[in-house]
Amino acid sequence: MLNPLQEAYVSAARVARLATVDKEARPHAVPVCYVYDEERFYTAIDRKPKVARSSDLTRIKNLVANPAVTLLIDHYSDDWTQLSYVQVRGIAVLVTSSSERSQAVSALRAKYSQYDTLLEDEATVVRIEPRRVVSWSSTGDL
Amino acid sequence: MLNPLQEAYVSAARVARLATVDKEARPHAVPVCYVYDEERFYTAIDRKPKVARSSDLTRIKNLVANPAVTLLIDHYSDDWTQLSYVQVRGIAVLVTSSSERSQAVSALRAKYSQYDTLLEDEATVVRIEPRRVVSWSSTGDL
Repeated sequence: MLNPLQEAYVSAARVARLATVDKEARPHAVPVCYVYDEERFYTAIDRKPKVARSSDLTRIKNLVANPAVTLLIDHYSDDWTQLSYVQVRGIAVLVTSSSERSQAVSALRAKYSQYDTLLEDEATVVRIEPRRVVSWSSTGDL
Repeated sequence: MLNPLQEAYVSAARVARLATVDKEARPHAVPVCYVYDEERFYTAIDRKPKVARSSDLTRIKNLVANPAVTLLIDHYSDDWTQLSYVQVRGIAVLVTSSSERSQAVSALRAKYSQYDTLLEDEATVVRIEPRRVVSWSSTGDL
């Protein structure tokens, strides 16, 4: 689904923005940490201090009711010759298999050492399956 | 609508992510440059080289059919004590008044010198009126 350049791009990035849609067809967007396993993306609900719990719940409630999501990974620079993004439109699913959750949690901890203490083994994990990928860069090489 | 801390935050930031919803209730998200005039946000369709025109059109088509949008302004750092975001849920309207467009284009050029050559006087300008604002920071001061 993603080409090798897009794969390298999303693997290197540290943050994405996840957009979901509520029942009234209004969008919701939050920054998320994620991993990409060369096929699917995983993101989790962690225990960041003082996190806006209601916003976490909105994200989960939205994607359970409407699994269509967009994950945007981009790079902004005031040097506009260096702008780029990869937009992944996909389907989000709450992970229910414990082995899949385990693998995702391990991968998230491997990418973000901050998760050693902030991500529980039993965290809520979301799998995002890409359906359509659009990318763009000022230099035209993405 | 925004409190003084949120106003300072969105005024200082250089990039936002704009989420819209298409007719099939699927979200779309792109990075955008914007200005905030202490009441409303403005963003424009510019002439960045090799821009993904179809993605620009999607954004506009979506918000004309469904004006509910979310503008997310956030700061990511690998130091997770420094994370923060302001999420603005609002209503987007295509600007039709030439004086309002003029003001918005001037404000965008004042904030982004890159727009001197990339933003036309007759650019398509979108006004976003905040309806609900959610903010969060690790330090709890936003």
